[in-house]
Amino acid sequence: MASNTIGQVIRCKAAVAWEAGKPLVIEEVEVAPPQAMEVRLKILFTSLCHTDVYFWEAKGQTPLFPRIFGHEAGGIVESVGEGVTDLKPGDHVLPVFTGECKECRHCKSEESNMCDLLRINTDRGVMLNDGKSRFSINGQPIYHFVGTSTFSEYTVVHVGCVAKINPAAPLDKVCVLSCGISTGLGATLNVAKPGKGSTVAIFGLGAVGLAAAEGARIAGASRIIGVDLNSKRFNEAKKFGVTEFVNPKDHDKPVQEVIAEMTGGGVDRSVECTGSINAMIAAYECVHDGWGVAVLFGVPNKDDAFKTHPVNVLNERTLKGTFFGNYKPRSDLPLVVEEYMNKELELEKFITHEVPFSEINKAFEHMLRGDGLRCVIRMDA
Amino acid sequence: MASNTIGQVIRCKAAVAWEAGKPLVIEEVEVAPPQAMEVRLKILFTSLCHTDVYFWEAKGQTPLFPRIFGHEAGGIVESVGEGVTDLKPGDHVLPVFTGECKECRHCKSEESNMCDLLRINTDRGVMLNDGKSRFSINGQPIYHFVGTSTFSEYTVVHVGCVAKINPAAPLDKVCVLSCGISTGLGATLNVAKPGKGSTVAIFGLGAVGLAAAEGARIAGASRIIGVDLNSKRFNEAKKFGVTEFVNPKDHDKPVQEVIAEMTGGGVDRSVECTGSINAMIAAYECVHDGWGVAVLFGVPNKDDAFKTHPVNVLNERTLKGTFFGNYKPRSDLPLVVEEYMNKELELEKFITHEVPFSEINKAFEHMLRGDGLRCVIRMDA
Ligand SMILES: NC(=O)c1ccc[n+]([C@@H]2O[C@H](COP(=O)([O-])OP(=O)(O)OC[C@H]3O[C@@H](n4cnc5c(N)ncnc54)[C@H](O)[C@@H]3O)[C@@H](O)[C@H]2O)c1
Ligand SMILES: NC(=O)c1ccc[n+]([C@@H]2O[C@H](COP(=O)([O-])OP(=O)(O)OC[C@H]3O[C@@H](n4cnc5c(N)ncnc54)[C@H](O)[C@@H]3O)[C@@H](O)[C@H]2O)c1
Ligand SMILES: [Zn+2]
Ligand SMILES: [Zn+2]
Ligand SMILES: [Zn+2]
Ligand SMILES: [Zn+2]
Repeated sequence: MASNTIGQVIRCKAAVAWEAGKPLVIEEVEVAPPQAMEVRLKILFTSLCHTDVYFWEAKGQTPLFPRIFGHEAGGIVESVGEGVTDLKPGDHVLPVFTGECKECRHCKSEESNMCDLLRINTDRGVMLNDGKSRFSINGQPIYHFVGTSTFSEYTVVHVGCVAKINPAAPLDKVCVLSCGISTGLGATLNVAKPGKGSTVAIFGLGAVGLAAAEGARIAGASRIIGVDLNSKRFNEAKKFGVTEFVNPKDHDKPVQEVIAEMTGGGVDRSVECTGSINAMIAAYECVHDGWGVAVLFGVPNKDDAFKTHPVNVLNERTLKGTFFGNYKPRSDLPLVVEEYMNKELELEKFITHEVPFSEINKAFEHMLRGDGLRCVIRMDA
Repeated sequence: MASNTIGQVIRCKAAVAWEAGKPLVIEEVEVAPPQAMEVRLKILFTSLCHTDVYFWEAKGQTPLFPRIFGHEAGGIVESVGEGVTDLKPGDHVLPVFTGECKECRHCKSEESNMCDLLRINTDRGVMLNDGKSRFSINGQPIYHFVGTSTFSEYTVVHVGCVAKINPAAPLDKVCVLSCGISTGLGATLNVAKPGKGSTVAIFGLGAVGLAAAEGARIAGASRIIGVDLNSKRFNEAKKFGVTEFVNPKDHDKPVQEVIAEMTGGGVDRSVECTGSINAMIAAYECVHDGWGVAVLFGVPNKDDAFKTHPVNVLNERTLKGTFFGNYKPRSDLPLVVEEYMNKELELEKFITHEVPFSEINKAFEHMLRGDGLRCVIRMDA
């Protein structure tokens, strides 16, 4: 990256989704310079998350194409727009699909990370500043995705969606902290907050659920019960400290009853990472009365209703939801990176595949097959 | 009370409910001495709560008659049974419908007050120790109610259901802390925990809801929004620090939307004290995303379902339930009495009527008419 790119349009490679569900095409795109409060990043590593696949399939949403997907990544600041004082060229960063403006009521509240200005917006394909895209091919704009669009060698992101991290951190590992792993980890560590020696149930043993299990391991839980409809997940989950397994399909009674019996009345904490409404209800109803806390964050269908008898509430069960593990992206992610650097948090076990950028469609294939957890895409290869 | 009653059957007056919904009859009853881990109390003041009326009406439950109702009261220990070391004759106490054994997982957990041994049981009309009643008339047993049966000059209660309080506290005032007032107060102070300057919505402005409002006032909330279907409640509520009122009937849109508009997105905390499932759902949906907490404790109908879109959960709204305001009866009630003694907590405004024991049925009439908040019944009159 030559410093003379500052203020210039950069021509580089990006994986463009031209149509819903069709393989991405590596194209040469033009990336405009960052405007006020924006930064342009050189992406070095990006990984694939279900949310990319979900919006690429565009089932049940208004499709927005052509678009550049990607939101889990690690990169380096190439240049900054007007008004950006927190970041400078060369800084190592993680772009994040949701932001922290540091000025709204949410950003000022200790309890919330749902920034009013920069909260995730999957419908918007343009930058906030001027309502336009920074990507184009021969003058045709290409839409952004959740303000990150990391399936490109260069991308433009609002400064509020960029976490500056320790430059010693290996970007090919910590890139997975941009979304799913932090979400699961924070759901347990920041929201469920299991005590040492407690019993935790994790519903859904995908990457996010296993990150929630990693959080329970770090918190010192003594029993971590993994629940999944797919028993194949159990083998992998053992590496993540999951001590017991329940497949709801193996039982005639509701899984919440099975868990209550296994635990003398219910678990201390549960974390739901499936997106299934049944799992959400079971995760709530399987916590112990008096002190149990259930945390939900699977993304539900539009018509789903969370339904439970109010006596379950009165009996002092707490229901919480979380978005991005309650991490404030700019304030908190650098600290999560430090936890990895201090070897408290293990990330390697989440990275099951690696492909060069030219083979990005293979990452989609792995995910569609349910094969592995995270596939890291090397942009330089 | 002569000390020679110890170990003897006491003959005294009690208000007996012979049949569902029929006026109580003041009868001479025999009260057996306390058995192991029981104490016999001389009741000086008792007040009437909706739960008494609900079980006296016996709609939708298995009726259990003849029975002595009553569970909000203040009294003095007359004698103690074997194994009771915490209490002695002459101690001033509040009997409580739910207990604290100090040995079970709930009692040992800092988070729960739902004692496994002594948790409220409305179906049981007898003592735990021998499965028998301590009350009789000519040998016919009269059933207990929630282990307290305070509509009697003397009653027998498990030691775990008795809070020993400051003997300087006026029993004709603090008796109301045995149930409803503590429930509402604790729902706010122990569970919702509003910050100074926060906005709190209270659904239902009966005695319990007004106690929740009193909790919000003590916590320093700056806006307390009262919600009730009965606008007559609004006048009284002003004395309890309620600053604004919403009657859902005055609006075409759901009350959660009305409140969201009044508050720029939702209240910081809400407390539901109605028993209506619609109010429970509205109380949850009217809290602000990111940090809002809703606390429910109205007792719902059997077939009610709490129903909400899971996105309301994911957007970081917390749902909590509470039982008896999360107070542990023996450990915490003495401290609530001290708050009253220190003039932090006001109780006088909850006591709107007073009747002699001989006119106890008038207390029922007041409550059935929705007239006033608490009617204190003087046992000596
Ligand atoms: N809130 C956020 O910030 C955020 C961020 C990222 C992902 N997510 C959501 O987290 C969820 C999990 O993501 P992932 O990448 O781990 O997905 P994944 O598909 O890899 O894993 C989900 C697992 O849940 C299991 N499952 C499905 N229904 C189940 C049920 N009823 N009971 C038990 N197990 C069941 C599946 O078999 C699968 O193993 C998704 O809903 C995703 O949208 C949320
Ligand atoms: N969980 C516990 O430990 C505990 C203890 C005592 C009482 N309670 C419960 O608390 C609740 C309140 O008790 P109370 O003595 O104050 O009752 P109350 O009947 O005096 O007051 C209830 C109020 O709620 C209002 N209301 C009813 N439906 C409403 C709706 N949909 N929206 C707004 N307002 C509505 C009524 O008009 C009334 O003013 C009851 O359900 C009671 O069973 C619970
Ligand atoms: Zn903000
Ligand atoms: Zn993601
Ligand atoms: Zn106990
Ligand atoms: Zn009561």
